[in-house]
Amino acid sequence: MILNVKSKNKTEMIDITSAVRDAVRSAGRESGVCMVYSPHTTAAVTINEAADPAVARDIMMALDQVVPWKADYRHAEGNSPAHVKSTLVGASELIAIEDGQLALGTWQGIFFCEFDGPRNRKVHVRFI
Amino acid sequence: MILNVKSKNKTEMIDITSAVRDAVRSAGRESGVCMVYSPHTTAAVTINEAADPAVARDIMMALDQVVPWKADYRHAEGNSPAHVKSTLVGASELIAIEDGQLALGTWQGIFFCEFDGPRNRKVHVRFI
Amino acid sequence: MILNVKSKNKTEMIDITSAVRDAVRSAGRESGVCMVYSPHTTAAVTINEAADPAVARDIMMALDQVVPWKADYRHAEGNSPAHVKSTLVGASELIAIEDGQLALGTWQGIFFCEFDGPRNRKVHVRFI
Repeated sequence: MILNVKSKNKTEMIDITSAVRDAVRSAGRESGVCMVYSPHTTAAVTINEAADPAVARDIMMALDQVVPWKADYRHAEGNSPAHVKSTLVGASELIAIEDGQLALGTWQGIFFCEFDGPRNRKVHVRFI
Repeated sequence: MILNVKSKNKTEMIDITSAVRDAVRSAGRESGVCMVYSPHTTAAVTINEAADPAVARDIMMALDQVVPWKADYRHAEGNSPAHVKSTLVGASELIAIEDGQLALGTWQGIFFCEFDGPRNRKVHVRFI
Repeated sequence: MILNVKSKNKTEMIDITSAVRDAVRSAGRESGVCMVYSPHTTAAVTINEAADPAVARDIMMALDQVVPWKADYRHAEGNSPAHVKSTLVGASELIAIEDGQLALGTWQGIFFCEFDGPRNRKVHVRFI
């Protein structure tokens, strides 16, 4: 199943939890594991707090400090920091399914991480 | 299966390899893949060297330097660095099972990473 | 299935996409998920751009800046930064298989990340 995600900013965490929930429901999955995968090399998928939007904002700010936009990069497209962040955060996350529901912790949500937006992106949701 | 983990420090790597081994044994799994998952947003799971405790200590020290405790964070709870580390290290790890044993490399152990302790935590162990 | 990888430098990203493709083909897998796993504690597996080699070079350079070689490390072997990078990048990646092919995004390739080479390394390829 493919989710379409539209980022609006250069860097941005987009909460896709309810879209993944819908995918689990429409697939009729009662158990197993859900794999959420980004097919992009300047984006990622992560699980973190979905309650206070300041958390996502702080994560993106911290990543900008960890991987500065200006450094001795060689890649001509100028988006090397986005590639580095993609490798640091990772292309996929796994979430168990119990009784047809995503077995997330109380504060956990699933986020698509845009590191070189704005762009139209895709997220793959698969079941194992 | 749920493991209870009790952290004693603000940041700490706790070796849970033998607890995961026990879970594999008590589930009677002979093959497949074991998923070790943290349902928390200020913690993570990683695989690294379990022989010399200085390695875990160095990892936690390095993460403190990568994500400083003081910066222009907005999240009111003051634990934003713990959330950032959770995203950098990741919520889960996968380990294959062969002949009923975890197929870890010679030096590998499985660690629960506490980034905002001390707390009582849970780790989910599932089989795929 | 085990791939043998020989790194030639201290730090290096080695494109193993075609070797993983061969493993999928020789296993005769038509669908499911492929798990690519590093059994080493000073190496990792990541997915990133395989078209321009400058991207891999920039990622390794950025990681050297994120985790400096000199700091107050205690681990006597002197390779603590390699252990830290291993935890940041992660021991494994998952890639879906569709119609017998790896379902990678257009620009994605699979890389073995050497952080303490040169060495003879192994990569485990398993199917879920």
